[in-house]
Amino acid sequence: MTMVIPRTGIGVDVHAYSDDPERELWVAGLKWPGERGLDGHSDSDVAAHACCDALFSAAGIGDLGQHFGVDRPEFAGASGAVLLAEAAHQVRAAGFEIGNVCVQVIGNRPKIGTRRIDAQQVLSQAAGADVSVSGTTTDALGLTGRGEGVAAIANALVYPIARDEASVAAPTPH
Amino acid sequence: MTMVIPRTGIGVDVHAYSDDPERELWVAGLKWPGERGLDGHSDSDVAAHACCDALFSAAGIGDLGQHFGVDRPEFAGASGAVLLAEAAHQVRAAGFEIGNVCVQVIGNRPKIGTRRIDAQQVLSQAAGADVSVSGTTTDALGLTGRGEGVAAIANALVYPIARDEASVAAPTPH
Amino acid sequence: MTMVIPRTGIGVDVHAYSDDPERELWVAGLKWPGERGLDGHSDSDVAAHACCDALFSAAGIGDLGQHFGVDRPEFAGASGAVLLAEAAHQVRAAGFEIGNVCVQVIGNRPKIGTRRIDAQQVLSQAAGADVSVSGTTTDALGLTGRGEGVAAIANALVYPIARDEASVAAPTPH
Repeated sequence: MTMVIPRTGIGVDVHAYSDDPERELWVAGLKWPGERGLDGHSDSDVAAHACCDALFSAAGIGDLGQHFGVDRPEFAGASGAVLLAEAAHQVRAAGFEIGNVCVQVIGNRPKIGTRRIDAQQVLSQAAGADVSVSGTTTDALGLTGRGEGVAAIANALVYPIARDEASVAAPTPH
Repeated sequence: MTMVIPRTGIGVDVHAYSDDPERELWVAGLKWPGERGLDGHSDSDVAAHACCDALFSAAGIGDLGQHFGVDRPEFAGASGAVLLAEAAHQVRAAGFEIGNVCVQVIGNRPKIGTRRIDAQQVLSQAAGADVSVSGTTTDALGLTGRGEGVAAIANALVYPIARDEASVAAPTPH
Repeated sequence: MTMVIPRTGIGVDVHAYSDDPERELWVAGLKWPGERGLDGHSDSDVAAHACCDALFSAAGIGDLGQHFGVDRPEFAGASGAVLLAEAAHQVRAAGFEIGNVCVQVIGNRPKIGTRRIDAQQVLSQAAGADVSVSGTTTDALGLTGRGEGVAAIANALVYPIARDEASVAAPTPH
Protein backbone atom coordinates (compact mmCIF):
# COMPACT_ATOMS: atom_id res chain seq x y z
CA MET A 1 0.00 0.00 0.00
CA THR A 2 1.28 3.41 -0.86
CA MET A 3 0.56 6.98 -0.01
CA VAL A 4 0.29 10.22 -1.86
CA ILE A 5 2.35 13.10 -0.53
CA PRO A 6 0.86 16.52 -1.18
CA ARG A 7 3.09 19.44 -2.11
CA THR A 8 2.44 22.99 -0.97
CA GLY A 9 2.95 26.20 -2.94
CA ILE A 10 2.74 29.88 -2.05
CA GLY A 11 2.00 33.03 -4.03
CA VAL A 12 1.69 36.73 -3.21
CA ASP A 13 0.71 39.49 -5.64
CA VAL A 14 0.23 43.25 -5.40
CA HIS A 15 -1.20 45.77 -7.88
CA ALA A 16 -1.52 49.54 -7.53
CA TYR A 17 -4.80 51.39 -8.08
CA SER A 18 -4.95 53.09 -11.45
CA ASP A 19 -5.26 56.82 -12.02
CA ASP A 20 -7.36 56.10 -15.08
CA PRO A 21 -11.04 56.54 -14.15
CA GLU A 22 -12.02 54.34 -17.13
CA ARG A 23 -9.96 51.40 -15.89
CA GLU A 24 -12.16 48.47 -14.77
CA LEU A 25 -11.55 46.65 -11.50
CA TRP A 26 -11.18 42.88 -11.81
CA VAL A 27 -10.47 40.93 -8.62
CA ALA A 28 -11.00 37.22 -7.88
CA GLY A 29 -12.37 36.52 -11.35
CA LEU A 30 -15.10 39.16 -11.08
CA LYS A 31 -15.62 42.62 -12.53
CA TRP A 32 -16.48 45.13 -9.82
CA PRO A 33 -18.56 47.91 -11.43
CA GLY A 34 -18.11 51.38 -10.01
CA GLU A 35 -14.81 50.52 -8.31
CA ARG A 36 -11.42 52.02 -9.11
CA GLY A 37 -9.31 49.73 -11.30
CA LEU A 38 -5.82 48.33 -10.75
CA ASP A 39 -2.88 49.10 -13.04
CA GLY A 40 -1.12 46.48 -15.11
CA HIS A 41 -0.76 45.07 -18.61
CA SER A 42 -3.21 42.26 -17.81
CA ASP A 43 -6.50 42.73 -15.95
CA SER A 44 -4.40 43.00 -12.76
CA ASP A 45 -6.50 40.43 -10.92
CA VAL A 46 -4.26 40.05 -7.87
CA ALA A 47 -6.27 37.15 -6.48
CA ALA A 48 -6.13 35.08 -9.65
CA HIS A 49 -2.46 35.91 -10.11
CA ALA A 50 -1.61 34.83 -6.56
CA CYS A 51 -3.46 31.55 -7.19
CA CYS A 52 -1.43 30.99 -10.38
CA ASP A 53 1.82 31.58 -8.52
CA ALA A 54 0.77 29.27 -5.67
CA LEU A 55 0.06 26.51 -8.19
CA PHE A 56 3.33 27.00 -10.06
CA SER A 57 5.15 27.05 -6.71
CA ALA A 58 3.53 23.81 -5.54
CA ALA A 59 4.55 22.09 -8.75
CA GLY A 60 8.01 23.66 -8.66
CA ILE A 61 7.70 24.96 -12.21
CA GLY A 62 8.42 28.64 -11.80
CA ASP A 63 6.13 31.63 -11.61
CA LEU A 64 3.82 34.03 -13.41
CA GLY A 65 6.68 36.05 -14.83
CA GLN A 66 8.16 32.96 -16.44
CA HIS A 67 4.93 31.53 -17.84
CA PHE A 68 3.01 34.66 -18.77
CA GLY A 69 5.81 37.21 -19.20
CA VAL A 70 6.40 39.71 -21.94
CA ASP A 71 7.72 36.96 -24.22
CA ARG A 72 4.31 35.30 -24.23
CA PRO A 73 2.30 37.98 -26.04
CA GLU A 74 -0.68 35.66 -26.43
CA PHE A 75 -1.39 36.24 -22.72
CA ALA A 76 -1.05 40.03 -22.80
CA GLY A 77 -4.30 41.42 -21.46
CA ALA A 78 -5.62 37.97 -20.56
CA SER A 79 -8.13 37.81 -17.72
CA GLY A 80 -7.18 36.38 -14.35
CA ALA A 81 -9.52 33.46 -14.88
CA VAL A 82 -7.90 32.63 -18.24
CA LEU A 83 -4.44 32.74 -16.66
CA LEU A 84 -5.58 30.56 -13.77
CA ALA A 85 -7.04 27.98 -16.16
CA GLU A 86 -3.76 27.94 -18.10
CA ALA A 87 -1.71 27.66 -14.88
CA ALA A 88 -3.84 24.72 -13.76
CA HIS A 89 -3.36 23.12 -17.18
CA GLN A 90 0.42 23.49 -16.94
CA VAL A 91 0.50 22.09 -13.41
CA ARG A 92 -1.46 19.04 -14.57
CA ALA A 93 0.79 18.68 -17.62
CA ALA A 94 3.73 18.62 -15.21
CA GLY A 95 2.24 15.56 -13.51
CA PHE A 96 0.16 16.91 -10.65
CA GLU A 97 -3.47 16.98 -9.62
CA ILE A 98 -4.76 19.98 -7.67
CA GLY A 99 -6.10 19.47 -4.16
CA ASN A 100 -7.32 22.93 -3.35
CA VAL A 101 -6.28 26.56 -3.57
CA CYS A 102 -7.06 29.28 -1.04
CA VAL A 103 -6.64 33.01 -1.56
CA GLN A 104 -7.12 35.98 0.73
CA VAL A 105 -7.60 39.44 -0.80
CA ILE A 106 -6.01 42.12 1.38
CA GLY A 107 -7.24 45.66 0.83
CA ASN A 108 -9.85 48.32 1.47
CA ARG A 109 -11.74 47.76 -1.79
CA PRO A 110 -13.41 45.77 -3.20
CA LYS A 111 -15.41 44.23 -0.36
CA ILE A 112 -14.89 40.55 -1.13
CA GLY A 113 -17.50 39.38 1.35
CA THR A 114 -20.30 40.84 -0.73
CA ARG A 115 -19.58 38.50 -3.67
CA ARG A 116 -17.44 35.78 -2.14
CA ILE A 117 -19.50 32.82 -3.38
CA ASP A 118 -19.49 34.14 -6.95
CA ALA A 119 -15.73 34.63 -6.78
CA GLN A 120 -15.21 31.09 -5.51
CA GLN A 121 -17.33 29.68 -8.34
CA VAL A 122 -15.49 31.56 -11.09
CA LEU A 123 -12.00 30.75 -9.79
CA SER A 124 -12.87 27.13 -8.95
CA GLN A 125 -14.23 26.60 -12.45
CA ALA A 126 -11.09 28.13 -13.94
CA ALA A 127 -8.78 25.96 -11.83
CA GLY A 128 -10.86 22.80 -12.08
CA ALA A 129 -10.47 22.49 -8.31
CA ASP A 130 -11.82 24.12 -5.18
CA VAL A 131 -10.62 27.70 -4.72
CA SER A 132 -11.67 29.36 -1.47
CA VAL A 133 -11.75 33.16 -1.37
CA SER A 134 -11.69 35.46 1.65
CA GLY A 135 -10.89 39.07 2.42
CA THR A 136 -9.31 41.25 5.06
CA THR A 137 -8.03 44.77 5.68
CA THR A 138 -4.90 46.06 7.38
CA ASP A 139 -6.27 48.64 9.82
CA ALA A 140 -5.30 51.64 7.62
CA LEU A 141 -1.61 50.57 7.67
CA GLY A 142 0.76 49.64 4.90
CA LEU A 143 0.27 49.87 1.16
CA THR A 144 -3.16 48.31 1.29
CA GLY A 145 -4.32 50.23 4.36
CA ARG A 146 -3.31 53.54 2.79
CA GLY A 147 -5.33 52.62 -0.29
CA GLU A 148 -2.36 52.53 -2.65
CA GLY A 149 -3.19 49.08 -3.95
CA VAL A 150 -4.55 45.60 -3.33
CA ALA A 151 -2.59 42.51 -2.28
CA ALA A 152 -3.49 38.85 -2.36
CA ILE A 153 -1.90 35.79 -0.81
CA ALA A 154 -2.60 32.27 -1.98
CA ASN A 155 -1.65 28.76 -1.00
CA ALA A 156 -2.14 25.57 -3.03
CA LEU A 157 -1.85 21.85 -2.45
CA VAL A 158 -1.08 19.55 -5.38
CA TYR A 159 -0.50 15.78 -5.66
CA PRO A 160 1.60 13.71 -8.01
CA ILE A 161 -0.70 12.05 -10.53
CA ALA A 162 -0.73 8.26 -10.28
CA ARG A 163 0.88 6.66 -13.32
CA ASP A 164 -0.72 3.34 -12.58
CA GLU A 165 -3.05 1.95 -9.97
CA ALA A 166 -0.34 0.18 -8.01
CA SER A 167 1.75 3.26 -7.44
CA VAL A 168 -0.79 5.35 -5.60
CA ALA A 169 -3.98 4.94 -3.73
CA ALA A 170 -6.42 7.06 -5.62
CA PRO A 171 -8.63 9.66 -4.03
CA THR A 172 -12.31 8.85 -4.17
CA PRO A 173 -14.19 11.24 -6.39
CA HIS A 174 -16.49 13.38 -4.31
CA MET B 1 -8.99 2.03 -1.14
CA THR B 2 -9.43 5.66 -0.42
CA MET B 3 -7.46 8.48 1.10
CA VAL B 4 -8.12 11.65 2.95
CA ILE B 5 -7.16 14.79 1.10
CA PRO B 6 -6.17 17.72 3.28
CA ARG B 7 -7.25 21.24 2.40
CA THR B 8 -5.10 24.29 3.03
CA GLY B 9 -6.22 27.74 4.18
CA ILE B 10 -4.46 31.07 4.59
CA GLY B 11 -5.03 34.10 6.80
CA VAL B 12 -3.26 37.44 7.35
CA ASP B 13 -4.21 40.08 9.89
CA VAL B 14 -2.86 43.50 10.88
CA HIS B 15 -3.70 45.81 13.79
CA ALA B 16 -2.32 49.24 14.59
CA TYR B 17 -0.86 50.13 17.98
CA SER B 18 -3.25 52.14 20.11
CA ASP B 19 -2.66 55.67 21.37
CA ASP B 20 -4.53 54.79 24.56
CA PRO B 21 -1.96 54.03 27.29
CA GLU B 22 -4.61 52.03 29.18
CA ARG B 23 -5.22 49.68 26.25
CA GLU B 24 -3.99 46.13 27.01
CA LEU B 25 -1.91 44.14 24.52
CA TRP B 26 -3.29 40.71 23.66
CA VAL B 27 -1.37 38.65 21.12
CA ALA B 28 -1.44 34.89 20.51
CA GLY B 29 -3.96 34.29 23.27
CA LEU B 30 -1.82 35.97 25.92
CA LYS B 31 -1.97 39.30 27.73
CA TRP B 32 1.38 41.09 27.57
CA PRO B 33 1.62 43.35 30.65
CA GLY B 34 3.51 46.59 30.21
CA GLU B 35 3.26 46.49 26.41
CA ARG B 36 1.42 48.97 24.22
CA GLY B 37 -1.99 47.69 23.11
CA LEU B 38 -3.44 47.29 19.63
CA ASP B 39 -6.52 49.14 18.41
CA GLY B 40 -9.76 47.42 17.48
CA HIS B 41 -13.27 46.65 18.64
CA SER B 42 -12.18 43.17 19.79
CA ASP B 43 -8.98 42.44 21.75
CA SER B 44 -7.13 42.89 18.42
CA ASP B 45 -5.25 39.60 18.80
CA VAL B 46 -3.73 39.50 15.31
CA ALA B 47 -2.36 35.98 15.79
CA ALA B 48 -5.66 34.46 16.88
CA HIS B 49 -7.51 36.35 14.13
CA ALA B 50 -5.11 35.12 11.45
CA CYS B 51 -5.64 31.55 12.73
CA CYS B 52 -9.43 32.01 12.48
CA ASP B 53 -9.15 33.24 8.91
CA ALA B 54 -6.82 30.39 7.95
CA LEU B 55 -9.33 27.89 9.30
CA PHE B 56 -12.30 29.52 7.56
CA SER B 57 -10.23 29.66 4.36
CA ALA B 58 -9.29 25.97 4.55
CA ALA B 59 -12.95 25.04 4.98
CA GLY B 60 -14.03 27.51 2.28
CA ILE B 61 -16.62 29.11 4.55
CA GLY B 62 -15.66 32.76 4.42
CA ASP B 63 -13.74 34.93 6.82
CA LEU B 64 -13.62 36.77 10.10
CA GLY B 65 -15.62 39.69 8.77
CA GLN B 66 -18.45 37.39 7.75
CA HIS B 67 -18.55 35.29 10.92
CA PHE B 68 -17.71 37.85 13.58
CA GLY B 69 -18.68 41.12 11.90
CA VAL B 70 -20.66 44.00 13.25
CA ASP B 71 -23.91 42.08 12.74
CA ARG B 72 -22.79 39.52 15.32
CA PRO B 73 -22.80 41.75 18.43
CA GLU B 74 -22.34 38.74 20.72
CA PHE B 75 -18.71 38.62 19.57
CA ALA B 76 -17.99 42.32 20.04
CA GLY B 77 -15.03 42.53 22.38
CA ALA B 78 -14.53 38.76 22.40
CA SER B 79 -11.01 37.54 23.08
CA GLY B 80 -8.90 36.02 20.33
CA ALA B 81 -9.03 32.63 22.04
CA VAL B 82 -12.84 32.74 22.18
CA LEU B 83 -13.02 33.63 18.49
CA LEU B 84 -10.57 30.85 17.62
CA ALA B 85 -12.61 28.30 19.56
CA GLU B 86 -15.75 29.43 17.74
CA ALA B 87 -13.99 29.34 14.35
CA ALA B 88 -12.80 25.79 15.06
CA HIS B 89 -16.35 24.85 16.05
CA GLN B 90 -17.75 26.26 12.80
CA VAL B 91 -15.12 24.49 10.72
CA ARG B 92 -16.00 21.16 12.38
CA ALA B 93 -19.70 21.87 11.94
CA ALA B 94 -18.98 22.33 8.23
CA GLY B 95 -17.61 18.78 8.08
CA PHE B 96 -13.88 19.11 8.67
CA GLU B 97 -11.35 18.00 11.25
CA ILE B 98 -8.37 20.24 11.93
CA GLY B 99 -4.87 18.93 11.22
CA ASN B 100 -2.75 21.78 12.48
CA VAL B 101 -2.50 25.55 12.37
CA CYS B 102 0.70 27.59 12.28
CA VAL B 103 0.99 31.30 12.88
CA GLN B 104 3.92 33.71 12.69
CA VAL B 105 3.69 37.05 14.50
CA ILE B 106 5.50 39.79 12.56
CA GLY B 107 6.46 42.86 14.54
CA ASN B 108 8.85 44.57 16.92
CA ARG B 109 6.78 43.90 20.04
CA PRO B 110 5.82 41.71 21.81
CA LYS B 111 8.78 39.33 21.79
CA ILE B 112 6.96 36.07 21.03
CA GLY B 113 9.97 33.90 21.80
CA THR B 114 9.81 34.78 25.47
CA ARG B 115 6.39 33.12 25.89
CA ARG B 116 6.05 30.95 22.82
CA ILE B 117 5.17 27.71 24.63
CA ASP B 118 2.43 29.43 26.65
CA ALA B 119 1.01 30.95 23.48
CA GLN B 120 0.98 27.57 21.73
CA GLN B 121 -0.85 25.99 24.67
CA VAL B 122 -3.55 28.64 24.85
CA LEU B 123 -4.21 28.70 21.09
CA SER B 124 -4.01 24.90 20.75
CA GLN B 125 -6.54 24.47 23.55
CA ALA B 126 -8.84 27.00 21.90
CA ALA B 127 -8.62 25.33 18.50
CA GLY B 128 -8.68 21.77 19.80
CA ALA B 129 -5.69 21.11 17.54
CA ASP B 130 -2.00 21.88 17.42
CA VAL B 131 -1.25 25.55 16.84
CA SER B 132 2.43 26.40 16.40
CA VAL B 133 3.50 29.98 17.13
CA SER B 134 6.63 31.80 16.00
CA GLY B 135 7.83 35.36 15.60
CA THR B 136 9.92 37.54 13.36
CA THR B 137 10.74 41.17 12.61
CA THR B 138 11.13 43.07 9.34
CA ASP B 139 14.47 44.83 9.78
CA ALA B 140 12.90 48.22 10.61
CA LEU B 141 11.02 48.26 7.27
CA GLY B 142 7.32 48.41 6.47
CA LEU B 143 4.41 48.97 8.82
CA THR B 144 5.69 46.47 11.35
CA GLY B 145 9.32 47.58 11.16
CA ARG B 146 8.34 51.21 11.71
CA GLY B 147 6.39 50.16 14.78
CA GLU B 148 3.00 51.21 13.43
CA GLY B 149 1.39 47.86 14.14
CA VAL B 150 1.68 44.11 14.34
CA ALA B 151 0.91 41.58 11.58
CA ALA B 152 0.34 37.85 11.70
CA ILE B 153 0.20 35.20 9.00
CA ALA B 154 -1.39 31.80 9.54
CA ASN B 155 -1.84 28.61 7.59
CA ALA B 156 -4.15 25.72 8.43
CA LEU B 157 -4.73 22.18 7.20
CA VAL B 158 -8.15 20.60 7.59
CA TYR B 159 -9.59 17.22 6.53
CA PRO B 160 -13.05 16.15 5.51
CA ILE B 161 -14.58 14.20 8.36
CA ALA B 162 -15.13 10.56 7.42
CA ARG B 163 -18.79 9.64 7.34
CA ASP B 164 -18.03 5.92 7.62
CA GLU B 165 -14.97 3.70 7.95
CA ALA B 166 -14.85 2.70 4.32
CA SER B 167 -14.40 6.24 3.16
CA VAL B 168 -11.31 6.90 5.25
CA ALA B 169 -8.95 4.05 4.41
CA ALA B 170 -5.62 5.62 5.06
CA PRO B 171 -2.38 5.67 3.14
CA THR B 172 0.41 3.64 4.69
CA PRO B 173 3.34 5.47 6.23
CA HIS B 174 6.50 4.89 4.27
CA MET C 1 -4.58 0.69 9.38
CA THR C 2 -2.65 3.88 9.67
CA MET C 3 -2.32 7.24 8.08
CA VAL C 4 0.20 10.00 8.07
CA ILE C 5 -1.05 13.51 8.71
CA PRO C 6 1.09 16.30 7.26
CA ARG C 7 1.71 19.46 9.24
CA THR C 8 2.04 22.88 7.66
CA GLY C 9 4.40 25.70 8.67
CA ILE C 10 4.79 29.31 7.59
CA GLY C 11 7.70 31.76 7.53
CA VAL C 12 8.20 35.35 6.39
CA ASP C 13 11.47 37.27 6.40
CA VAL C 14 12.56 40.78 5.40
CA HIS C 15 16.01 42.35 5.08
CA ALA C 16 16.94 45.90 4.15
CA TYR C 17 19.39 46.73 1.38
CA SER C 18 22.80 47.68 2.72
CA ASP C 19 24.47 51.07 2.26
CA ASP C 20 27.83 49.27 2.09
CA PRO C 21 28.82 48.94 -1.59
CA GLU C 22 31.15 46.04 -0.66
CA ARG C 23 28.33 44.01 0.84
CA GLU C 24 27.54 40.89 -1.23
CA LEU C 25 23.99 39.90 -2.11
CA TRP C 26 23.01 36.36 -1.16
CA VAL C 27 19.44 35.27 -1.89
CA ALA C 28 18.01 31.76 -2.23
CA GLY C 29 21.37 30.12 -1.57
CA LEU C 30 23.11 31.98 -4.40
CA LYS C 31 25.55 34.88 -4.56
CA TRP C 32 24.34 37.54 -6.99
CA PRO C 33 27.43 39.37 -8.31
CA GLY C 34 27.03 43.04 -9.07
CA GLU C 35 23.86 43.37 -6.98
CA ARG C 36 23.43 45.49 -3.86
CA GLY C 37 23.70 43.44 -0.66
CA LEU C 38 21.26 43.08 2.22
CA ASP C 39 22.08 44.12 5.79
CA GLY C 40 22.29 41.68 8.67
CA HIS C 41 24.70 39.79 10.92
CA SER C 42 24.32 36.66 8.77
CA ASP C 43 24.36 36.63 4.96
CA SER C 44 20.79 38.00 5.14
CA ASP C 45 19.45 35.39 2.73
CA VAL C 46 15.76 36.15 3.18
CA ALA C 47 14.66 33.14 1.13
CA ALA C 48 16.71 30.61 3.10
CA HIS C 49 15.67 32.24 6.38
CA ALA C 50 11.97 32.10 5.47
CA CYS C 51 12.41 28.40 4.61
CA CYS C 52 14.03 27.77 8.02
CA ASP C 53 11.16 29.49 9.80
CA ALA C 54 8.57 27.57 7.78
CA LEU C 55 10.24 24.29 8.77
CA PHE C 56 10.49 25.23 12.45
CA SER C 57 6.85 26.37 12.33
CA ALA C 58 5.67 23.10 10.78
CA ALA C 59 7.44 21.11 13.48
CA GLY C 60 6.24 23.50 16.20
CA ILE C 61 9.75 24.00 17.53
CA GLY C 62 10.13 27.76 17.47
CA ASP C 63 11.84 30.05 15.04
CA LEU C 64 15.08 31.42 13.64
CA GLY C 65 15.58 33.79 16.54
CA GLN C 66 15.39 30.94 19.01
CA HIS C 67 17.61 28.51 17.12
CA PHE C 68 20.17 30.83 15.55
CA GLY C 69 19.97 33.87 17.83
CA VAL C 70 22.74 35.89 19.37
CA ASP C 71 23.30 33.20 22.01
CA ARG C 72 24.38 30.75 19.30
CA PRO C 73 27.59 32.47 18.15
CA GLU C 74 28.59 29.44 16.08
CA PHE C 75 25.93 30.49 13.56
CA ALA C 76 26.93 34.17 13.39
CA GLY C 77 27.66 34.91 9.75
CA ALA C 78 26.51 31.46 8.62
CA SER C 79 25.20 31.23 5.07
CA GLY C 80 21.53 30.73 4.39
CA ALA C 81 22.20 27.26 3.02
CA VAL C 82 24.06 26.25 6.19
CA LEU C 83 21.21 27.51 8.35
CA LEU C 84 18.65 25.70 6.21
CA ALA C 85 20.60 22.43 6.49
CA GLU C 86 20.75 22.86 10.27
CA ALA C 87 17.03 23.70 10.46
CA ALA C 88 16.20 20.58 8.44
CA HIS C 89 18.42 18.55 10.77
CA GLN C 90 16.62 19.89 13.84
CA VAL C 91 13.20 19.23 12.32
CA ARG C 92 14.20 15.62 11.62
CA ALA C 93 15.67 15.28 15.11
CA ALA C 94 12.28 16.40 16.44
CA GLY C 95 10.66 13.44 14.69
CA PHE C 96 9.54 14.74 11.32
CA GLU C 97 10.32 14.09 7.68
CA ILE C 98 10.11 16.97 5.23
CA GLY C 99 7.60 16.79 2.38
CA ASN C 100 8.45 19.95 0.48
CA VAL C 101 9.19 23.61 1.02
CA CYS C 102 8.19 26.48 -1.26
CA VAL C 103 9.49 30.03 -1.11
CA GLN C 104 8.61 33.17 -3.04
CA VAL C 105 11.10 36.04 -3.14
CA ILE C 106 9.31 39.41 -3.20
CA GLY C 107 11.34 42.37 -4.43
CA ASN C 108 12.72 44.35 -7.33
CA ARG C 109 16.17 42.73 -7.25
CA PRO C 110 17.56 40.15 -7.73
CA LYS C 111 15.61 38.71 -10.66
CA ILE C 112 14.98 35.21 -9.36
CA GLY C 113 13.72 33.91 -12.69
CA THR C 114 17.17 34.22 -14.23
CA ARG C 115 18.66 31.62 -11.86
CA ARG C 116 15.63 29.85 -10.43
CA ILE C 117 16.76 26.29 -11.20
CA ASP C 118 20.16 26.88 -9.57
CA ALA C 119 18.47 28.32 -6.50
CA GLN C 120 16.15 25.34 -6.24
CA GLN C 121 19.09 22.94 -6.46
CA VAL C 122 21.13 24.67 -3.76
CA LEU C 123 18.24 25.02 -1.31
CA SER C 124 16.90 21.50 -2.01
CA GLN C 125 20.32 20.01 -1.36
CA ALA C 126 20.58 21.97 1.88
CA ALA C 127 17.14 20.90 3.08
CA GLY C 128 17.40 17.32 1.83
CA ALA C 129 13.95 17.82 0.32
CA ASP C 130 12.37 19.62 -2.61
CA VAL C 131 12.45 23.40 -2.27
CA SER C 132 10.64 25.32 -5.00
CA VAL C 133 11.68 28.93 -5.60
CA SER C 134 9.75 31.70 -7.35
CA GLY C 135 9.76 35.48 -7.51
CA THR C 136 7.42 38.43 -7.74
CA THR C 137 7.32 42.20 -7.40
CA THR C 138 4.84 44.55 -5.75
CA ASP C 139 4.13 47.11 -8.47
CA ALA C 140 6.41 49.78 -6.91
CA LEU C 141 4.41 49.69 -3.64
CA GLY C 142 5.43 48.89 -0.10
CA LEU C 143 8.89 48.30 1.32
CA THR C 144 9.86 45.97 -1.51
CA GLY C 145 8.34 48.08 -4.28
CA ARG C 146 10.15 51.18 -3.04
CA GLY C 147 13.40 49.23 -3.13
CA GLU C 148 14.03 49.43 0.61
CA GLY C 149 14.54 45.71 1.00
CA VAL C 150 13.62 42.19 -0.05
CA ALA C 151 10.98 39.94 1.51
CA ALA C 152 10.41 36.21 1.25
CA ILE C 153 7.51 34.00 2.22
CA ALA C 154 7.83 30.25 2.66
CA ASN C 155 5.57 27.34 3.43
CA ALA C 156 6.60 23.82 4.43
CA LEU C 157 4.92 20.45 4.87
CA VAL C 158 6.40 17.92 7.28
CA TYR C 159 5.29 14.44 8.41
CA PRO C 160 5.72 12.59 11.67
CA ILE C 161 8.33 9.88 11.18
CA ALA C 162 6.82 6.47 11.78
CA ARG C 163 8.65 4.83 14.70
CA ASP C 164 6.71 1.61 14.30
CA GLU C 165 3.24 0.70 13.18
CA ALA C 166 1.77 1.12 16.62
CA SER C 167 3.00 4.65 17.02
CA VAL C 168 1.30 5.94 13.93
CA ALA C 169 -2.12 4.43 14.29
CA ALA C 170 -4.40 6.96 12.74
CA PRO C 171 -6.65 9.20 14.77
CA THR C 172 -10.22 7.98 14.73
CA PRO C 173 -12.43 10.45 13.01
CA HIS C 174 -14.87 11.87 15.51
